[in-house]
Amino acid sequence: MFSRIVTHIRKHVSISAEEEAILTSALELRDIKKKEFLLEAGEVCRENYFINQGCFRLYLITPKGNEQVIQFGIEDWWITEYFSLKTGAPSQYYLQATENAEVVVLKRHLEDELFARIPQLERYFRLVLEKAYSAQLNRIHYIFNLTGEEQYRMMSQKYPEFVQRIPQYMLASFLGITPEFLSMLRSKKD
Amino acid sequence: MFSRIVTHIRKHVSISAEEEAILTSALELRDIKKKEFLLEAGEVCRENYFINQGCFRLYLITPKGNEQVIQFGIEDWWITEYFSLKTGAPSQYYLQATENAEVVVLKRHLEDELFARIPQLERYFRLVLEKAYSAQLNRIHYIFNLTGEEQYRMMSQKYPEFVQRIPQYMLASFLGITPEFLSMLRSKKD
Repeated sequence: MFSRIVTHIRKHVSISAEEEAILTSALELRDIKKKEFLLEAGEVCRENYFINQGCFRLYLITPKGNEQVIQFGIEDWWITEYFSLKTGAPSQYYLQATENAEVVVLKRHLEDELFARIPQLERYFRLVLEKAYSAQLNRIHYIFNLTGEEQYRMMSQKYPEFVQRIPQYMLASFLGITPEFLSMLRSKKD
Repeated sequence: MFSRIVTHIRKHVSISAEEEAILTSALELRDIKKKEFLLEAGEVCRENYFINQGCFRLYLITPKGNEQVIQFGIEDWWITEYFSLKTGAPSQYYLQATENAEVVVLKRHLEDELFARIPQLERYFRLVLEKAYSAQLNRIHYIFNLTGEEQYRMMSQKYPEFVQRIPQYMLASFLGITPEFLSMLRSKKD
């Protein structure tokens, strides 16, 4: 269903019923099974995803062979790999569902026409990107200035449900600590 | 002068001569001396800045009293503290000129009216933000996966002029290494 994305858009901008119909006819719903990929390294990213249900992680494989999680996304967030999407260069990243999920797909090649027909979408994505960009700058701040333990405590406090639904080893990778250390932190808390 | 920003906007979107006049009448030019602040921690950020000339750094003071550079900006980049700008919360960051500089100021309280009168600006800022956001995700990737030395080598190769114009201790702070170690890396190269 497109009701969730339409509600999210209307929180930011006004669109008419006619524009809503144009929009939803250009979008696509896709069910994604847990561990399935929306993008794999080496592929060109051609879609942007609004998360209706579920959780995704954007990660890469380091030269040493470890998974490094760069970003998580849950309901009401857009997730994609903008560099590849915009430049057409093959991506270095994997985008994978960590749970059974449903996304709304916005295909790159439909974007320009869609935005021309519904100019308010430009504003919507500008506002969404401002928020996402600002979150990334804060993340850089945390990476430098909080220990893995402090970041975990902060996340547990601010996003307790999110921390519960992420597999432990992925959360450890996001925080830059080992799964063993995270496990120790969790047991200390309980 | 506003010629640089108008050129930059026209690289991304079309605006008419009339729209250009509306835009430039809402903007302001400001000269900033080296080491002067556009924003200090504790203040609310109320402006967005297009860099006409010069270099800026966004940084914070860590609990241990060190400066941590989160971001640099040079000519043709926008720089601000979006979280404070959008939420009205006091900023944790400092935004300071590292050279004598000139910026074009877009005041927050003029933004909505300006964007309503020149809808193409929504698209322009969406495109600018997509690029900035994607650069931050890459930065997170580098912080986790490259050593300070590897990041320095990469920056020296990709942005040699930029590396030259930044004071050494600020570049070290951006890379998460000590000024002494950066000095050693630089002398190794020469």
